[in-house]
Amino acid sequence: MDIKTAYNDDNYTIHVGHNIYDTLIHDYTKDYKDVYYIIDEYVYELYETKFSQLNHVIKAPRGEAFKHINPVMNTIDSLLDLNIKRNSLIVVIGGGATGDAGALLSSIILRGVDYIHVPTTLLSHDSSVGGKTAINRPHGKNLVGTFYRPKAVIFDLNFLKTLDDEEILSGFGEVIKHAMLNDQITVENLMHQNRRCINIEQLEPFIITGIKTKLRYVTEDETESNVRKALNLGHTLGHALEYEYQLKHGHAVVLGLLFMLYVSNERLNKSFNLQKYVEYFKSVGYDVSYLNELNIPSLIERMSHDKKNNETEKIQFVLLEAFGTPKFDNICIDELTHYLKEFQEII
Amino acid sequence: MDIKTAYNDDNYTIHVGHNIYDTLIHDYTKDYKDVYYIIDEYVYELYETKFSQLNHVIKAPRGEAFKHINPVMNTIDSLLDLNIKRNSLIVVIGGGATGDAGALLSSIILRGVDYIHVPTTLLSHDSSVGGKTAINRPHGKNLVGTFYRPKAVIFDLNFLKTLDDEEILSGFGEVIKHAMLNDQITVENLMHQNRRCINIEQLEPFIITGIKTKLRYVTEDETESNVRKALNLGHTLGHALEYEYQLKHGHAVVLGLLFMLYVSNERLNKSFNLQKYVEYFKSVGYDVSYLNELNIPSLIERMSHDKKNNETEKIQFVLLEAFGTPKFDNICIDELTHYLKEFQEII
Ligand SMILES: NC(=O)c1ccc[n+]([C@@H]2O[C@H](COP(=O)([O-])OP(=O)(O)OC[C@H]3O[C@@H](n4cnc5c(N)ncnc54)[C@H](O)[C@@H]3O)[C@@H](O)[C@H]2O)c1
Ligand SMILES: NC(=O)c1ccc[n+]([C@@H]2O[C@H](COP(=O)([O-])OP(=O)(O)OC[C@H]3O[C@@H](n4cnc5c(N)ncnc54)[C@H](O)[C@@H]3O)[C@@H](O)[C@H]2O)c1
Repeated sequence: MDIKTAYNDDNYTIHVGHNIYDTLIHDYTKDYKDVYYIIDEYVYELYETKFSQLNHVIKAPRGEAFKHINPVMNTIDSLLDLNIKRNSLIVVIGGGATGDAGALLSSIILRGVDYIHVPTTLLSHDSSVGGKTAINRPHGKNLVGTFYRPKAVIFDLNFLKTLDDEEILSGFGEVIKHAMLNDQITVENLMHQNRRCINIEQLEPFIITGIKTKLRYVTEDETESNVRKALNLGHTLGHALEYEYQLKHGHAVVLGLLFMLYVSNERLNKSFNLQKYVEYFKSVGYDVSYLNELNIPSLIERMSHDKKNNETEKIQFVLLEAFGTPKFDNICIDELTHYLKEFQEII
Repeated sequence: MDIKTAYNDDNYTIHVGHNIYDTLIHDYTKDYKDVYYIIDEYVYELYETKFSQLNHVIKAPRGEAFKHINPVMNTIDSLLDLNIKRNSLIVVIGGGATGDAGALLSSIILRGVDYIHVPTTLLSHDSSVGGKTAINRPHGKNLVGTFYRPKAVIFDLNFLKTLDDEEILSGFGEVIKHAMLNDQITVENLMHQNRRCINIEQLEPFIITGIKTKLRYVTEDETESNVRKALNLGHTLGHALEYEYQLKHGHAVVLGLLFMLYVSNERLNKSFNLQKYVEYFKSVGYDVSYLNELNIPSLIERMSHDKKNNETEKIQFVLLEAFGTPKFDNICIDELTHYLKEFQEII
């Protein structure tokens, strides 16, 4: 499946499918004089037979370890050593972290060199769309970055076969989020087709829906001044939980989505069947017990430092009127404390 | 004088004049909740009475010392300490180096915060136009950067009064280059009005012409894929001389412009009065004696490593058909050696 972006200019294609890497990488690289590969060192190891015959390969520190200024600068210097030019191509192969750091460095080396992203995790169906690049700082995650579009995204789902369960659960969290931002039917189908466990071989249609959903929001608002913020569904509490309990991103998002459903019921007078979703998430493998003993003051503190919020008193949440219909709401800290307490009781 | 950019979007005004800083900075900052000032430490010292009452000031390492990743990251962390938000404003005050590094960090902190540049050197009439940001790497100058437009440029020429002679000569080199890219009359007037020495108080019209000339090129071709390269007039040899003899940028550009006139005479069959320009440049204070004993192999080596050239065999030069009419030409290394030898003899 080829999904084409719909910006005013600089559009590109996101290719999704099984067994598509070899042909597509050949097509995309053939017109460049020089091609440089930046590959997650662990992914390189797993797929060594595939990658070992390539010229100009730089192995990047595994996963999140790459999202720091020193490895990024070292990689830039290695590329300069290899004589990279403005008309070269960089191919970034790895998960969301490799993508974020690899795209950032592509955007700043020689003031911007073309790059292609080859995502290799389930979670990167999300991170490879939208043009956000980032590295972390001591103050927090993703505090330094750019907006920069790839020339293409080649998402070969065969790479997902080597993912461990934890990574699959993490990626699936964002698949669920996108389903919830899409519509009721997608949510129901997703739950039905992944009843007892996550069926990675059958996820293709949901990944495609996820990408299209995300694309719809980011095309409208690339720099996140308004509607793009809907993609933070589940993320306000999710981020706080991620740091508080050192959870995988998508796992934390799932917990955040449950809270979001609860708050939507309370504030928007909805009737999402919270218990049904709690049971479902448990059944596919998420540990929801973190929600039973929340360190509420610490979580609130973390949420109010979220860089995406411009107000200090109230915290912006994304709620749902219905699946597919997000609604922004600013919740003051008193109320939030109250909701977290109640939620903790009923979960 | 207010000069407005003419991009498709995100336009801004370049204000040029004497005594304009106080009013304009007030106007531009008043709608932002938080404003952060990044000021060249030496400029801060010179204008301490003006700046000492400001909130949120970060003093940047002087001049080129700021154009490295560590001071840039330290400044980013200081801004995060001071709780900078995506809707804050950064005001960068200093010469071209401060501008380049300050603009780069504005473009990457929180994926881009608004910034205003207040250039304080003559050379920064050039660097503050065109949206290029940059820092240096061990491999060379300006190898890491972005394209990022300020919200405004406030060029208060009163700041120029404290510049020393060397800095004035350096800045004047780019003023001359822009005059040469404009037309014959501008070049004649400029030389006439700055007969025996550079008359900094009277430069305003030439600075404005310079800015407008540069703007014409960069608007047409922001990312330097073609016509913008004309702004490299005098820079191919200029850059090589700058590093070879550790010259100030604009001083090296002036020497590069002389060589460019010579090569234009030779290859395009022109008759620029080389001797007249040599005498003029000497008379206002440039040391042209570097041109008498060139280390030709080393210069050639440096030129062929210029990142702006995509070919390795031939080196791209910008020549002049006439003042105001640049012409690109690729010169192979043999010929170039020959020209440099001949030029050295007659200078
Ligand atoms: N730019 C965006 O819009 C955006 C959106 C969401 C998340 N993100 C970022 O994405 C990152 C999380 O994504 P992620 O989970 O893909 O990160 P990741 O790159 O750290 O990958 C997770 C782990 O999986 C391993 N891995 C990668 N491919 C594999 C494969 N095919 N088989 C086995 N193991 C493999 C990696 O080595 C790593 O240890 C975070 O840094 C987050 O900030 C960015
Ligand atoms: N971005 C662009 O398009 C572009 C174009 C040309 C040059 N540049 C860059 O600009 C830089 C050179 O510009 P520059 O010469 O202005 O650099 P600079 O910022 O290093 O300033 C030169 C010196 O003048 C001092 N100074 C600044 N303002 C002063 C004042 N008002 N009075 C007295 N001293 C003052 C500084 O402390 C410094 O020592 C280089 O780094 C070059 O790469 C960028």
